[in-house]
Amino acid sequence: MSYKSIKRAAYEANMQLPELGLVLFTFGNASVVDRSKGVFAIKPSGVPYKDLRAKDMVIVDFEGKTVKGKMRPSSDTKTHAVLYKHWEDIGGIVHTHSTYGTAWAQAQKDIPIMGTTHADHLTVDIPCAPPMSDEMIKGNYERATGFQILKEFEKRGLSYQEVEMILLGNHAPFTWGKTVNKAVYNSAVLEECAKMAYLSLGIRPLAPRLKETLIQKHYERKHGPDSYYGQVE
Amino acid sequence: MSYKSIKRAAYEANMQLPELGLVLFTFGNASVVDRSKGVFAIKPSGVPYKDLRAKDMVIVDFEGKTVKGKMRPSSDTKTHAVLYKHWEDIGGIVHTHSTYGTAWAQAQKDIPIMGTTHADHLTVDIPCAPPMSDEMIKGNYERATGFQILKEFEKRGLSYQEVEMILLGNHAPFTWGKTVNKAVYNSAVLEECAKMAYLSLGIRPLAPRLKETLIQKHYERKHGPDSYYGQVE
Amino acid sequence: MSYKSIKRAAYEANMQLPELGLVLFTFGNASVVDRSKGVFAIKPSGVPYKDLRAKDMVIVDFEGKTVKGKMRPSSDTKTHAVLYKHWEDIGGIVHTHSTYGTAWAQAQKDIPIMGTTHADHLTVDIPCAPPMSDEMIKGNYERATGFQILKEFEKRGLSYQEVEMILLGNHAPFTWGKTVNKAVYNSAVLEECAKMAYLSLGIRPLAPRLKETLIQKHYERKHGPDSYYGQVE
Amino acid sequence: MSYKSIKRAAYEANMQLPELGLVLFTFGNASVVDRSKGVFAIKPSGVPYKDLRAKDMVIVDFEGKTVKGKMRPSSDTKTHAVLYKHWEDIGGIVHTHSTYGTAWAQAQKDIPIMGTTHADHLTVDIPCAPPMSDEMIKGNYERATGFQILKEFEKRGLSYQEVEMILLGNHAPFTWGKTVNKAVYNSAVLEECAKMAYLSLGIRPLAPRLKETLIQKHYERKHGPDSYYGQVE
Repeated sequence: MSYKSIKRAAYEANMQLPELGLVLFTFGNASVVDRSKGVFAIKPSGVPYKDLRAKDMVIVDFEGKTVKGKMRPSSDTKTHAVLYKHWEDIGGIVHTHSTYGTAWAQAQKDIPIMGTTHADHLTVDIPCAPPMSDEMIKGNYERATGFQILKEFEKRGLSYQEVEMILLGNHAPFTWGKTVNKAVYNSAVLEECAKMAYLSLGIRPLAPRLKETLIQKHYERKHGPDSYYGQVE
Repeated sequence: MSYKSIKRAAYEANMQLPELGLVLFTFGNASVVDRSKGVFAIKPSGVPYKDLRAKDMVIVDFEGKTVKGKMRPSSDTKTHAVLYKHWEDIGGIVHTHSTYGTAWAQAQKDIPIMGTTHADHLTVDIPCAPPMSDEMIKGNYERATGFQILKEFEKRGLSYQEVEMILLGNHAPFTWGKTVNKAVYNSAVLEECAKMAYLSLGIRPLAPRLKETLIQKHYERKHGPDSYYGQVE
Repeated sequence: MSYKSIKRAAYEANMQLPELGLVLFTFGNASVVDRSKGVFAIKPSGVPYKDLRAKDMVIVDFEGKTVKGKMRPSSDTKTHAVLYKHWEDIGGIVHTHSTYGTAWAQAQKDIPIMGTTHADHLTVDIPCAPPMSDEMIKGNYERATGFQILKEFEKRGLSYQEVEMILLGNHAPFTWGKTVNKAVYNSAVLEECAKMAYLSLGIRPLAPRLKETLIQKHYERKHGPDSYYGQVE
Repeated sequence: MSYKSIKRAAYEANMQLPELGLVLFTFGNASVVDRSKGVFAIKPSGVPYKDLRAKDMVIVDFEGKTVKGKMRPSSDTKTHAVLYKHWEDIGGIVHTHSTYGTAWAQAQKDIPIMGTTHADHLTVDIPCAPPMSDEMIKGNYERATGFQILKEFEKRGLSYQEVEMILLGNHAPFTWGKTVNKAVYNSAVLEECAKMAYLSLGIRPLAPRLKETLIQKHYERKHGPDSYYGQVE
């Protein structure tokens, strides 16, 4: 079996992260799924971006077991596996410790929807899942991280097809998308919205959230049947 | 009819925006008018800057209808059209979601004139128009955005020849000028003034606005009959 | 008479300013004096850095009159002239609107000495002169700016040989030094101290100034008869 | 005796500091020890990074005396000497005035452990030693700085093998590691944690420290017998 195309795609997505200023050293990882084979390609653990090669990507199944590859996969691999297994429409996942996104996660606060930059991409606050219980942390931590994300989406009644990002409380952002390029894009959007919301609340601490009509309008410009942003494909 | 020169100018203006750090991905657009032909050239919607070519620019009339071009114009096209139609002295328009400018827009606050950097360019606070009414948002949104800008200038008694920038509440900055290069320049000036005002109020929350004599002096150094900044043209 | 060497030195100093991130567009200027000839070379007004050439530098005397050069000198020229005339030991002057330094100037606050980074360069807060009186502003403004700087140093009993920088209230920083390279260096030091002090007070609003023994120790490491920083010249 | 390899390693470590955005001008230094010879190689004092060459590195013993080299060693040399003498497991030391780390030092505050980015590297707040007594400052200042660091670790019961970084109150960060590359890495980690903690407390001033189970989990992922981050060596 050949995994060449997902390894190449995962490699290129990982290399975009430092270029976009979203990771320092090895603080991030991107993966790409091949659903026909039930596996995904992910960055090896702790390898600096400058030394990374496409052939180093590790092939892992949805239980988080390495299928092919000589190196250890990212320590966050099991979180990716849980999301791929339960959310059947996603094609790529990205995890970063981007500065502003992580600052909100450390504050254990949702990133409030304050403007149309945010509304162009999602209609709700960027959710922040609470830190896990001590039992979950002491157990299979990375697998539990995946379930913490699933649980938060269920609790809030969110659709992972519409809201493609989350903060893990005290940890950092995870994003996803139909393709890994969309997931990378979402990581940069999250970071920019995180910075803008930080600044807006610095300027006016009680600034209100965006009103509902503007949220709907901007989201519908880019998504759904009547969207008119971008080119017809 | 040839639109080559405005397409080239619009292309080059658009390409300056990421270089000046004013746009992420496709979050911005610049346009250039040809008043003799009653049209303007604008960036196609959603095309990444790295893939953009001069020939992709779309030619649009002052009602916002595409006159020439295979691609969809920017989703903000109708806002540009309204401004070109009503403000006969402007040659170019730029829209960005630059970080600090957008943060002030999200806070729905004017950017106060705190120093001579600001006064070198305009004598008043950078105005922030309030978010539109629900009726305007649900209707012809981008056209209404243009009228919201016109209305705000009228209400405040501002001249668009003297104040070449505005924030749309909850949205982001729009700037313009006699040429598109001046509009690009204004976008960068707005962002820098937005950052400096943010920082000054962080240092001293009740810092006063610039006093009137300094405002007049600095503005007149650069503008009007007795200006002595720059070279004689 | 040849002014080649001061024109070259002024050109190179001006070109360092955008490289060090201290100026946007044309918001700054550097000059170099030749005391044997009683003139200085300064950047022409309003010329973008990318178009600047050494031969464009304008030669001006200590009254602020152009001695040689086809272009208008910087609009801040008379401020430079006053400082060169009265402070006989300075060889170069730099004016920028660097972001954090200007933010403190807009807040009309001295930059407090909070750490050894600051004390390595001066033993006092970076002074902020108050905005000028309306009479001074309406009169010969740039000349008055020079006298405002002189007056502030006199009032505070500061030595321009020891304190090589000041903020003009509501305006921006001026720095100087025995050479123009030292003046450029001082502009970057001022900006870094301005940023660090801003952040420290954000972390701890009532953080104390640096204690006197540390101020003296660090300053004496780099300056005076017992200095041991750098190489013996 | 040849010191070529430690001079080369020290040179390369020093050159990484401006590349990582951790130093302005000459505000930093890195050193590498050779324990078999009882010496370390350190940057010469006050030499700009762009002029630095590997052969300029100065060889110094653990009393801070120059063993070989024509230039003066860094003014912070005696601090390095004290740490090498007393902490026998460290192979390299780095000192910077990185912006956010120095801002916390100026505020005389520990950097609180707020998230897993921090916990991936150490299990406690990044300690900030108080400024020294006037006697220590007026005496052998740089040597006393080393003892101030040792004393703070002793007082808090910290292990220098586990906590590889400290802030000197009112001064700036020092970091170390088994290798100088680890020390450089630690300097960048400290700066990033300093920035994230600053932002998190801006978002939520009373945000709690990270809970103990998450601290232990993340630290053990990367360190200790059951670590599973990175590749098996």
